[in-house]
Amino acid sequence: MPKEKVSNAVVARLPLYYRYLSALETQGYVRISSQQLGEKMGLTASQIRQDINCFGGFGQQGYGYNVTALKMHVGEILGMTSNYRMVILGAGNIGRAIANYKAFEKMEFVVDALFDVNASQMGEISGKPVLDITELPEYLEANTVDIGVIAVPSDAAQQACDALVQGGVRAIWNFAPVDLVVPPNVSIKSVHLLDALLVLSYYMSNSDA
Amino acid sequence: MPKEKVSNAVVARLPLYYRYLSALETQGYVRISSQQLGEKMGLTASQIRQDINCFGGFGQQGYGYNVTALKMHVGEILGMTSNYRMVILGAGNIGRAIANYKAFEKMEFVVDALFDVNASQMGEISGKPVLDITELPEYLEANTVDIGVIAVPSDAAQQACDALVQGGVRAIWNFAPVDLVVPPNVSIKSVHLLDALLVLSYYMSNSDA
Repeated sequence: MPKEKVSNAVVARLPLYYRYLSALETQGYVRISSQQLGEKMGLTASQIRQDINCFGGFGQQGYGYNVTALKMHVGEILGMTSNYRMVILGAGNIGRAIANYKAFEKMEFVVDALFDVNASQMGEISGKPVLDITELPEYLEANTVDIGVIAVPSDAAQQACDALVQGGVRAIWNFAPVDLVVPPNVSIKSVHLLDALLVLSYYMSNSDA
Repeated sequence: MPKEKVSNAVVARLPLYYRYLSALETQGYVRISSQQLGEKMGLTASQIRQDINCFGGFGQQGYGYNVTALKMHVGEILGMTSNYRMVILGAGNIGRAIANYKAFEKMEFVVDALFDVNASQMGEISGKPVLDITELPEYLEANTVDIGVIAVPSDAAQQACDALVQGGVRAIWNFAPVDLVVPPNVSIKSVHLLDALLVLSYYMSNSDA
């Protein structure tokens, strides 16, 4: 655990560190300097040192960082020590994409079930049961769910979110293009697909900038 | 067009402004103060004023901003004046989700075709043809494509990206969990789904922070 509160900007970069360090480990790297790591990640050596200091002082000046130890340390800060149990509300294309996304399970994020209003026609997706949305409260009472994924249409998203929160789910991952309201003890992360497209549009129309 | 280069952090907030201002317009707001807008968006009034100054000085102190005019101005900076033509490489779940995502077309991002290695079994998705990936070079010669979406497996992503770039596509929207290499005149935006999940994991395991 980090001693001090880490800034949101650094937290947003942590998964990037985790991905690059994992790749370096696979490629057989044992140690890496802040200079080398910076070149690979598109950051300056000084940014790398600042970030790593920020999440808990690591490595020795001049010797570089131990790749595996730093990767594990970042993983620990990210809370990747435990298995997270997930359910997905909405078994449309986005819900299915998440259920099928192999990289999640490798990182110990496990989807246990999907819920949909048309569950009766669906059966299973990637070996996970698709249950009727009306069964959600009962399911949440009987099972531990760490993360609820919202992949329902926008106009049903807040209701889906409320049902998860009411059932004790403390983290929401939202794919509906609306901003959801949650109590302060619930973490929420929204993926606004359109936002990414608009940012791309900006860089296209300002490509000389 | 903005006069000066806008920082990446401000660019990342532009879609947020666009979404909130669109919603306010729908709700019948004509003017809004930086204070009110800040409360809705979870930013301080001074951040709002700074951002808006940054993308080109707008509104008068004390009178607030004209909602429609500001929305249109943000839209213009985002390059939303024209119709963007898109193709999707990979007609799996993510490719299908993008092809079906109604909000894109509302913003003038139009998907014209999907490409897949198993196209022959697929026919159409949401009324868009699914073509064989080998037909891509010919298609790009005959049609204008502004944005290429990469929704193929990781190990095929760089090759898919190269084919788009070679065919003259100047903006890539990548959903494969790998970092792709593009020439400097090509814009790229990657959506790393796993990153969002890891950030959520961080906030879950540091929820007292």
